[in-house]
Amino acid sequence: MIVFQRSVQLSTEGETDIVNITETIQQIVRESGVRTGLASISGKGSTLGITTVEYESGILADLRRALDQLAPPNQFYAHNARWGDENGSAHLRSALMGTSRSYPVTEALLRLGTWQQIVLCDFDDRPRNREITVTVMGTAE
Amino acid sequence: MIVFQRSVQLSTEGETDIVNITETIQQIVRESGVRTGLASISGKGSTLGITTVEYESGILADLRRALDQLAPPNQFYAHNARWGDENGSAHLRSALMGTSRSYPVTEALLRLGTWQQIVLCDFDDRPRNREITVTVMGTAE
Amino acid sequence: MIVFQRSVQLSTEGETDIVNITETIQQIVRESGVRTGLASISGKGSTLGITTVEYESGILADLRRALDQLAPPNQFYAHNARWGDENGSAHLRSALMGTSRSYPVTEALLRLGTWQQIVLCDFDDRPRNREITVTVMGTAE
Repeated sequence: MIVFQRSVQLSTEGETDIVNITETIQQIVRESGVRTGLASISGKGSTLGITTVEYESGILADLRRALDQLAPPNQFYAHNARWGDENGSAHLRSALMGTSRSYPVTEALLRLGTWQQIVLCDFDDRPRNREITVTVMGTAE
Repeated sequence: MIVFQRSVQLSTEGETDIVNITETIQQIVRESGVRTGLASISGKGSTLGITTVEYESGILADLRRALDQLAPPNQFYAHNARWGDENGSAHLRSALMGTSRSYPVTEALLRLGTWQQIVLCDFDDRPRNREITVTVMGTAE
Repeated sequence: MIVFQRSVQLSTEGETDIVNITETIQQIVRESGVRTGLASISGKGSTLGITTVEYESGILADLRRALDQLAPPNQFYAHNARWGDENGSAHLRSALMGTSRSYPVTEALLRLGTWQQIVLCDFDDRPRNREITVTVMGTAE
């Protein structure tokens, strides 16, 4: 039984920057020596999200527009009013999407579809340095 | 410590077909020999979702209607415009709901509410064959 | 390798009561003896959600308002019409947010941001007693 954990730092642009982190996670899975098990991905913070998408520019534009409707950047937020922040909509998007996900590992590979990539969505209103932690658990067989 | 992984194939109807997969997963949990631990469920692809609902026709209709509002099938999608596809809304629903979830296993049973079933939601615009991978980790005690 | 599972009971107010459960979960992680691994949190039922937020009153008000728009309490629900219930919107919120999440454990601590708390959202229309199960897996190193 292997338990392997690694954190990586990523620079993001903010404003719902959607970053493909699949290869980064696959590399950590490779290092872990796990052949069968689970890779758990978690982003630190309350203005980001982790999910999967087909990573092509059409989907990314569609997802940004849908999130702009679900949690518009320029409406009243009690959070902004209270703290002088501008990222109330980022907090909402993060709470709804969630900041962590787990995917299976089979024969040392993330078991995803060909058109399914793991992404970090940075909803914050400015560039950030983000920490992603990957926990890989399973067997070497 | 047990790590047990099994994939199953499922036929779906598309158009937000919502399939109750609880018994299928419970069966895999049983086979695994795990009595205390975690069952992780993951669907392959970027136009499906995994979640739990009370599996009764009222809820299913309500969920479909809510998703039709959140990501309407018949509006402009950059994905559709770019690729000639018709499933832009399916991609959005999948990114927002997510394609994987984990639930506890206690005394060899999925620890869910009586009116809480695990479902595969197929958002795609046509029937599909779907692969679901279940990873069960834990102890035989 | 440690597999540790504990369930706790919580009283909630309903109507999207958002309860900070971070310290409760941290306590269970401490008890587990796991220093490196994963903590998986799951709520039993189909009218609740588990996610993370910055736990301050502005965000909580913003999240409640966003959910009121996403799944308004006082519109037609087939679930309500069929069963004489009043909690159709609670079911929708739960299916969309999900009832389970996993977060990393590093040096015996939940690896979360300073302004990132784990919350139980009780969407039901009345006070409830809720059961949360925490499964901690990992190593003592």
